[in-house]
Amino acid sequence: MNTFGNLFRLTSFGESHGEAIGGVIDGCPAGIALDMTFIQRELDRRKPGQSDITTSRKEADKVAFLSGIFEGKTTGAPIGFTVHNTNQHSSDYDNLKEVYRPSHADYTYQTKYGIRDHRGGGRSSARETVARVVAGAVAKLALKKLKIEIRAYTSQIGDIQLNTPYFELDLDQIESTPVRCPDRIVAEKMMQRIREVKAENDTIGGIISCICKGAPTGLGEPVFGKLHAALGNAMLSINAVKGFEYGLGFQSVLYKGSEINDSLYRNHEGKIASRTNYSGGIQGGISNGEDIYFRVAFKPVATVMKEQQTVNKQGLETVLFAKGRHDACVVPRAVPIVEAMAAMTMLDFCLYHKATQNFTA
Amino acid sequence: MNTFGNLFRLTSFGESHGEAIGGVIDGCPAGIALDMTFIQRELDRRKPGQSDITTSRKEADKVAFLSGIFEGKTTGAPIGFTVHNTNQHSSDYDNLKEVYRPSHADYTYQTKYGIRDHRGGGRSSARETVARVVAGAVAKLALKKLKIEIRAYTSQIGDIQLNTPYFELDLDQIESTPVRCPDRIVAEKMMQRIREVKAENDTIGGIISCICKGAPTGLGEPVFGKLHAALGNAMLSINAVKGFEYGLGFQSVLYKGSEINDSLYRNHEGKIASRTNYSGGIQGGISNGEDIYFRVAFKPVATVMKEQQTVNKQGLETVLFAKGRHDACVVPRAVPIVEAMAAMTMLDFCLYHKATQNFTA
Amino acid sequence: MNTFGNLFRLTSFGESHGEAIGGVIDGCPAGIALDMTFIQRELDRRKPGQSDITTSRKEADKVAFLSGIFEGKTTGAPIGFTVHNTNQHSSDYDNLKEVYRPSHADYTYQTKYGIRDHRGGGRSSARETVARVVAGAVAKLALKKLKIEIRAYTSQIGDIQLNTPYFELDLDQIESTPVRCPDRIVAEKMMQRIREVKAENDTIGGIISCICKGAPTGLGEPVFGKLHAALGNAMLSINAVKGFEYGLGFQSVLYKGSEINDSLYRNHEGKIASRTNYSGGIQGGISNGEDIYFRVAFKPVATVMKEQQTVNKQGLETVLFAKGRHDACVVPRAVPIVEAMAAMTMLDFCLYHKATQNFTA
Amino acid sequence: MNTFGNLFRLTSFGESHGEAIGGVIDGCPAGIALDMTFIQRELDRRKPGQSDITTSRKEADKVAFLSGIFEGKTTGAPIGFTVHNTNQHSSDYDNLKEVYRPSHADYTYQTKYGIRDHRGGGRSSARETVARVVAGAVAKLALKKLKIEIRAYTSQIGDIQLNTPYFELDLDQIESTPVRCPDRIVAEKMMQRIREVKAENDTIGGIISCICKGAPTGLGEPVFGKLHAALGNAMLSINAVKGFEYGLGFQSVLYKGSEINDSLYRNHEGKIASRTNYSGGIQGGISNGEDIYFRVAFKPVATVMKEQQTVNKQGLETVLFAKGRHDACVVPRAVPIVEAMAAMTMLDFCLYHKATQNFTA
Repeated sequence: MNTFGNLFRLTSFGESHGEAIGGVIDGCPAGIALDMTFIQRELDRRKPGQSDITTSRKEADKVAFLSGIFEGKTTGAPIGFTVHNTNQHSSDYDNLKEVYRPSHADYTYQTKYGIRDHRGGGRSSARETVARVVAGAVAKLALKKLKIEIRAYTSQIGDIQLNTPYFELDLDQIESTPVRCPDRIVAEKMMQRIREVKAENDTIGGIISCICKGAPTGLGEPVFGKLHAALGNAMLSINAVKGFEYGLGFQSVLYKGSEINDSLYRNHEGKIASRTNYSGGIQGGISNGEDIYFRVAFKPVATVMKEQQTVNKQGLETVLFAKGRHDACVVPRAVPIVEAMAAMTMLDFCLYHKATQNFTA
Repeated sequence: MNTFGNLFRLTSFGESHGEAIGGVIDGCPAGIALDMTFIQRELDRRKPGQSDITTSRKEADKVAFLSGIFEGKTTGAPIGFTVHNTNQHSSDYDNLKEVYRPSHADYTYQTKYGIRDHRGGGRSSARETVARVVAGAVAKLALKKLKIEIRAYTSQIGDIQLNTPYFELDLDQIESTPVRCPDRIVAEKMMQRIREVKAENDTIGGIISCICKGAPTGLGEPVFGKLHAALGNAMLSINAVKGFEYGLGFQSVLYKGSEINDSLYRNHEGKIASRTNYSGGIQGGISNGEDIYFRVAFKPVATVMKEQQTVNKQGLETVLFAKGRHDACVVPRAVPIVEAMAAMTMLDFCLYHKATQNFTA
Repeated sequence: MNTFGNLFRLTSFGESHGEAIGGVIDGCPAGIALDMTFIQRELDRRKPGQSDITTSRKEADKVAFLSGIFEGKTTGAPIGFTVHNTNQHSSDYDNLKEVYRPSHADYTYQTKYGIRDHRGGGRSSARETVARVVAGAVAKLALKKLKIEIRAYTSQIGDIQLNTPYFELDLDQIESTPVRCPDRIVAEKMMQRIREVKAENDTIGGIISCICKGAPTGLGEPVFGKLHAALGNAMLSINAVKGFEYGLGFQSVLYKGSEINDSLYRNHEGKIASRTNYSGGIQGGISNGEDIYFRVAFKPVATVMKEQQTVNKQGLETVLFAKGRHDACVVPRAVPIVEAMAAMTMLDFCLYHKATQNFTA
Repeated sequence: MNTFGNLFRLTSFGESHGEAIGGVIDGCPAGIALDMTFIQRELDRRKPGQSDITTSRKEADKVAFLSGIFEGKTTGAPIGFTVHNTNQHSSDYDNLKEVYRPSHADYTYQTKYGIRDHRGGGRSSARETVARVVAGAVAKLALKKLKIEIRAYTSQIGDIQLNTPYFELDLDQIESTPVRCPDRIVAEKMMQRIREVKAENDTIGGIISCICKGAPTGLGEPVFGKLHAALGNAMLSINAVKGFEYGLGFQSVLYKGSEINDSLYRNHEGKIASRTNYSGGIQGGISNGEDIYFRVAFKPVATVMKEQQTVNKQGLETVLFAKGRHDACVVPRAVPIVEAMAAMTMLDFCLYHKATQNFTA
């Protein structure tokens, strides 16, 4: 249950305060040149300590590849990699040995496994997503060869929303603010909100929007292999995610069928296309050649720097004072994680598509 | 890609206008008494022609079990079953042989497979969900032995919302109205809205809420086997679904961490429990013993009884006049489908849980 | 655990004395013309009552396809099918309700499942292989498009061996004798041996050799996806199989490395080939373009028409007198089953190969 | 395709001359105390340079665990581990950059992937089995809690056979000779044969026998999940293996059914047992509580220290002179590998068994 994907697969391992986070990327096509600068840049987008709106914790987050690469290219063999943990303050968590944090996985873990690495959440820590960003970066390099591109950005923090549709935004501006919102004015408001909440020793959530451009028509299977179900599963596997919607999503409930059907026409290249894209680029579970877009809701992280009522392992009620260096809002750092999961999903479906298309070719 | 589940699995087959819909249920524990009346009742909840707010199309929807049962009980062997299609008006679809319906899977299918059963959507038709309801009914009978119960209801049709939280509703009233909303007054409004939209030859969507009671603590895996991700994947595999959220879902974005953390306490039975349940019964991907609840958004179905602009197989623009007997709103009939998918998911996780718990027992 | 394959998959169901045997073929490429005469002929090769050396039991073994086919071609949707059981003498098995047959699965079933369909072995009956022959026939039709051909024959019955290597045999003669041995003289001896054993109310086993011609270089994965391991797994899933070997197999133990290494050279077409093929067409788990060949050992079936010591469900010792119409030797009827399992395996690997080859093509 | 197992899974990575061999063990039950001395001892049984009958190459083969362990016990989280390669003489392989070794995977790799790590066979090297021995050792520690034990030994080298049945041998003597044959006299002959072949610069194969004691009745599934098929698949995944047989295996062909049926009786403990065990402890694919035993045939390794005819990448014929430090016979070092693969398979089936047994318990 620590493997993601079918043909392109990541198996991840590691706890927040263990020796290392790492993984095995299996099924990566041979011959992909691995641009190490790009992969490290992706890790840097995720890493803590980037700006005043993230945690002050610092991690080097340097990836070491151990196999599957020869003369700079993938060989088709599995790619083993590790990212060593370097800046752990395990003692910050000593008080958690006996106490269950509210809305964390502490109690469920202890009950499920009968044993628990209490340091920093152990396996349930979002530090595990380091492995996903590495594998996602490899997937992006492969997708680039297929001219498929994935872009995510922060579209809401608390009540601060970016209402402009994605196709009216300059997505090249995403990285120009630490909050990763491409509209500079809204970004400023979002960062302001995060700073306020941080000052209150509290936390806040938000929404990430993601767009995938360049996907061919035909990715996905009609019934249990729907492309959007796989994307939903991928997103819901990210820590703190509470919801997923694609195309018009929950909004579609408010329209009539005739209002949001996507009429087909022949475009100027002579290709069949749809005039609108309320469907979100997927129809009947299968990509239709239009942009694929979806939204992912993140709750505020559970670790607040306030007193909280809870119980300890003996079931006695107690008060918890959190320690450690935590994010008041994880959404900006989750942007590359959303992209990574989307990239792995899309590549997986591209490989499956190849398997079944043009059988005798 | 037509198999759902890991240890409890449904493999489904069949097209809307083919010989039969059917499937194979694999991994069902031995010794479950199959209450055939219950299974048929579940199918009846899904079938067309139940009331004036569903399609007038009639289907017998009688299931025939072909294997895996001996003297009324499951044997551990795979359970093959078929539901024959009896009331197909294939000629209703003759005009679709050459035309791609907007927001349907016609164009994506033709492009993907190079061949397409145009009669009633073929494999992409929601008629396939008959197989899911059969397998879901079997799963429910198994879950009953574990005292796990799943209940879904319509909580929104168009703009008509049921705002009462689920724990204040009388869930035994769900089946008392054709729209499957347990609040009779809101139900009436919902049905009214469906009738209005039907009179306009249009369609409308809605939201289904689902609750799972009685799940033990410990279902789900921390990283890629999160329980809610599997539930999300299950729901997003249902036709017309555009979004999934659990617990507070998208709403959690509007709160601060301290506002929605679920404090732990020791309840009157001496068990650890949470005072609130904003988390939706799952923390860190693992069930915590509280009620699991989630919401599923359905778009209005794409088949409207109005003229629509589209293109044919040759890419020439044309106007489509839909024929056939269609639902103005599929949400009420989707309630048992949501339950079926939830039941299969929960049983699958219960079996996996058994595999890994109390190793030496 | 009733599904075989990864990309091309058969999920089978059915018991020997239930309503029907059947299955779902999933992942079959679209556009394959299904030659129904060919498929039925494959079933006829497997069916009982073909000649005096098989059981006198008669089964119609007519397959009904329920989905996944449109205008005679596969559509990419799952292919559901059933073969109804027509000639069951369940009462032949009444005495087995309480008794465990030696070397049968009766005792293991009862212990494992706590319930058992005692009629004719239930799920453990070789009647289930009807489903495999149907799926194998579909796979053969797909492989034909890739110019891959699979041929199996009886190479040993009891002590009667066919020692000629396969490449000196006229494989077109396989079907010319009921025992399916292409050498007419040896075939005659084999049939004689079967008749003798039958006259003794006993049973006898044998060996089936199988050759796959036309496979491209590159099928299979280096470590856990070795082509020969998948073929071995496929063969060992057939009832009564006790051993599998490929290339020189167990014989290779008797040679030195220098004696059985396959030297490479450039053949008259300018292609790299090997002068000998002791490896059996697979090196390092990957096909090398030479013929793939392997051997499968079948034990004598356990049902002998003699008194046997055994115990009943209460654990009391008793004497068993078998009834029913059984094969004295199943090997000739297993030839199409071996081919079917080989065909499914090869097609599965061809599809996987397509997924990973020529990534940017 | 680099993952083995379903519920207990090993995903391995690494090449013979890369940075490290390693893997991720997923699905290991929580609470297993990891005896590091035992694990290292298992690695030492496999490592080169143990005696004069193995290669003189030395490898430290020290395993480092990176996750999934807390205070000496497994936590249920995935166990990442690495074994660094320390004694690579990559230059020994410089001449192989352009040349394809006969009966090796060089040509198939180059054709399949278009790129090849030529140093020491890369991914196709048996060095990868280091990862299997680590995971197998963990599996053995878990199986020990279930009182299941696995023992393998060398039963044939070239023409030197150990004919004594396993139950008449003192299996505690296996490790007392470097060749791992428990009969000291036969062991001496085997070692003599290996030395002779080594002196000729040639190689030789052999057979490993393996016994699994203590498995409960009920492991395995009737059709595609047969226990012996999984064991066969596991064994055939080991480098140089050409054949697998269980119970009487290929020998069963020479007997009549009545001669080798295993009569059932009630033993002195009142349990149902079989008087003989020709079946090899598995009936109908399901373990019956008797000892499980099987045999695995290894061909002589392809690397001989003699001139061989072959071709280079350009397809030109050339003569190959092998370099490097190679085993004249890998069979003794393969004994722990056979055990490791058997242990992983058995544990996987035990977990699956737990999932499906005593459903309501």
